[in-house]
Amino acid sequence: MKRTSRDIRTANRYAVLRHLIAKSPASRGELAAGTGLSQATVATLVGELTALGLLVEVGFEESAGGRPRSLVAVDAAGGALVGVDVAETYVHAELFDLALGVVARAEEELRPGGSAPQEVVGRIAAAVRTVVESAAATADPHRPPRVLGVGVTMPGQVDRERGVAVRAANFGWRDVPLTALLAEHLPYPVHLDNPLRAATVAELWFGAARGRDDAVVINLGTGVGAGLALGGALHRGVTNSAGEWGHTTLVLDGRPCRCGDAGCVEAYVGAPAIMRALRELAPDSALLTEDDQTATIGALGRAAAAGDPVALRVVRETARHLGAAVADLVNLLNPEVIVLSSWVAAALGTPLLTEVREAVARHALGSPFAATEIVLSPIPTDPVCLGAATFALEGVLSSPGLTGTALTPHMT
Amino acid sequence: MKRTSRDIRTANRYAVLRHLIAKSPASRGELAAGTGLSQATVATLVGELTALGLLVEVGFEESAGGRPRSLVAVDAAGGALVGVDVAETYVHAELFDLALGVVARAEEELRPGGSAPQEVVGRIAAAVRTVVESAAATADPHRPPRVLGVGVTMPGQVDRERGVAVRAANFGWRDVPLTALLAEHLPYPVHLDNPLRAATVAELWFGAARGRDDAVVINLGTGVGAGLALGGALHRGVTNSAGEWGHTTLVLDGRPCRCGDAGCVEAYVGAPAIMRALRELAPDSALLTEDDQTATIGALGRAAAAGDPVALRVVRETARHLGAAVADLVNLLNPEVIVLSSWVAAALGTPLLTEVREAVARHALGSPFAATEIVLSPIPTDPVCLGAATFALEGVLSSPGLTGTALTPHMT
Repeated sequence: MKRTSRDIRTANRYAVLRHLIAKSPASRGELAAGTGLSQATVATLVGELTALGLLVEVGFEESAGGRPRSLVAVDAAGGALVGVDVAETYVHAELFDLALGVVARAEEELRPGGSAPQEVVGRIAAAVRTVVESAAATADPHRPPRVLGVGVTMPGQVDRERGVAVRAANFGWRDVPLTALLAEHLPYPVHLDNPLRAATVAELWFGAARGRDDAVVINLGTGVGAGLALGGALHRGVTNSAGEWGHTTLVLDGRPCRCGDAGCVEAYVGAPAIMRALRELAPDSALLTEDDQTATIGALGRAAAAGDPVALRVVRETARHLGAAVADLVNLLNPEVIVLSSWVAAALGTPLLTEVREAVARHALGSPFAATEIVLSPIPTDPVCLGAATFALEGVLSSPGLTGTALTPHMT
Repeated sequence: MKRTSRDIRTANRYAVLRHLIAKSPASRGELAAGTGLSQATVATLVGELTALGLLVEVGFEESAGGRPRSLVAVDAAGGALVGVDVAETYVHAELFDLALGVVARAEEELRPGGSAPQEVVGRIAAAVRTVVESAAATADPHRPPRVLGVGVTMPGQVDRERGVAVRAANFGWRDVPLTALLAEHLPYPVHLDNPLRAATVAELWFGAARGRDDAVVINLGTGVGAGLALGGALHRGVTNSAGEWGHTTLVLDGRPCRCGDAGCVEAYVGAPAIMRALRELAPDSALLTEDDQTATIGALGRAAAAGDPVALRVVRETARHLGAAVADLVNLLNPEVIVLSSWVAAALGTPLLTEVREAVARHALGSPFAATEIVLSPIPTDPVCLGAATFALEGVLSSPGLTGTALTPHMT
């Protein structure tokens, strides 16, 4: 509730860095114009970010009539951030430079059906070590990667302040102190959060929600959720569980949902529901690979893009439900943009987007609908890893003690 | 998106004044403890609010061992705020002192079915003049009320920055510049907004959402809506239309709704739907006064409170739908508190609250449900007038030019 001048300074640092990540180099004047901050504030922030080793001066630009303006840029090699996406069957890690370009990737497998905390911690640590070593091998030997932080996402409910996986149903975990366990293996600051929030923060910094005040990021996968970015920042709710749109009611007393309730959005638009729609419409369809959601949804997306009538009918039936549920978000939240994200959205692509837009138009009120863009996520890489790395970057930017002090390099 | 130090100063002024309205007098130390602000910040803010004529020093309190601490209080007679609630059939105005106590009330009738802008403007101006004259008649003649501002709520979609009623369906209005028209009649700053947002800001300042980061205020009347207070401030959305929860889908392809869609929450829990439930259950019920929602819902509430089985079944049927729709807000937004407000909630009271809580428990996810209180509005007066007056107070507190200057008294 209470906003402090430190919150403002952090938010302003975000704004300057976001602008520079999108467009480097830039003059202080361009940054002021792009962020709406004063020239004096921008000068101070550029000084702080330079002292943190995140920005560098890269020369001068002639200016009409005046003295040449100095240009600053993100120092891509000035540090590295690691994002780790933990799912039931894998641990996926990516190492990013400070321009948030992917430098190295690693994947570790997990046994489906519930891994013990120590095993998952070992796999995370191994994946992080792999990407750091791989990045070090290709880096300038005089300037090895300085790992500024590691962001880790864990499905389910997460207490980010204590670094605890409060509840991870697919793992059978309750109250696992993941950050503390990782600290025994990794010499970097670790930031724990949930994949829905990571995907949302990735859109906020680098995707379709950049520069928008109010955005909703819809994650379409096996489960579904809606990450909320309101007032230009993540809306977490009182226990960091906001966004459970998949378990809002679309059909009162409707289909059973795995949450125990009935008629939830997820029961109609999650990947298993899409497979069910295909199975009901065309039980012998060649598109259907039983027990393989990824293969089936992928085949469905390719067939729909090629104009296959069965695939298009399944997409339309999915969009009929999805559109009504997206219209609820338009009416309730009046956002500027709604982003369709995650693997189901990527697989079904434009045919889904087109049908969803039409279905939303049928259900939403005219005025908020006219103000809302509905788009596919423009992020080309894994948005969860990118968002996890962004949490690590936010950790760097909000550290009060770092101003003007060089970060200690950590190498394994 | 961008927060400035002026926003922070305004928010901090709100915090200090809210604290003092709830509990006057207080020492600067108590204010610092109650708001979480530093002693130095509180001292500056108290100075500003005193210069604005909103606070006064009221003496000293002994402190253990130290020098006596000076106490400040809201100067209730230091100014007046007017809140005006415009509905299809009436204009209701209330004049408040600075402690937000009601000093005078006035009501003007409107013909149902659409009044012209000039007529509504005339009624609003007349109601405001009546309350100001009535307050002046009872005030200290040496200190007549200084009207600091007038808040006006208009149903439908409102552009508060331009002061325009963009769309008021029950009036048949489009793009009526209400604030400019009122300026020809009233010598006070006018703040225009919508009644849903007024009821929400009233809870945020004076009711069940005070001191809460994330709250939802559910307006139950002929229409229904959900005002959102997120991050301690009103969430308006990109075109100030957030909160249209009444037109989110509860039963896909369900009952027709007056918005043109089908299966909306409002079609199941608005006053006409409650009357329909009573009519279907007991067509000859003595509780039913056809064409009079207020009388019927009032009788239903009294009968339910007295244990009448028919009335209780109607309340339960309403709560079955309302609870599912409230659970959607719990799951999506993870708020600290959900407030049931407006005349239907007041009429059905505790029997409705009890049934709604049980229905929400059946539909919401366990963890956010455990973190959410569900309560009836504790505001004893008309929350829309109170909220409209609060918008006027917020206007005073956010005026940058007012610091240290006395306000010009305006008397008609």
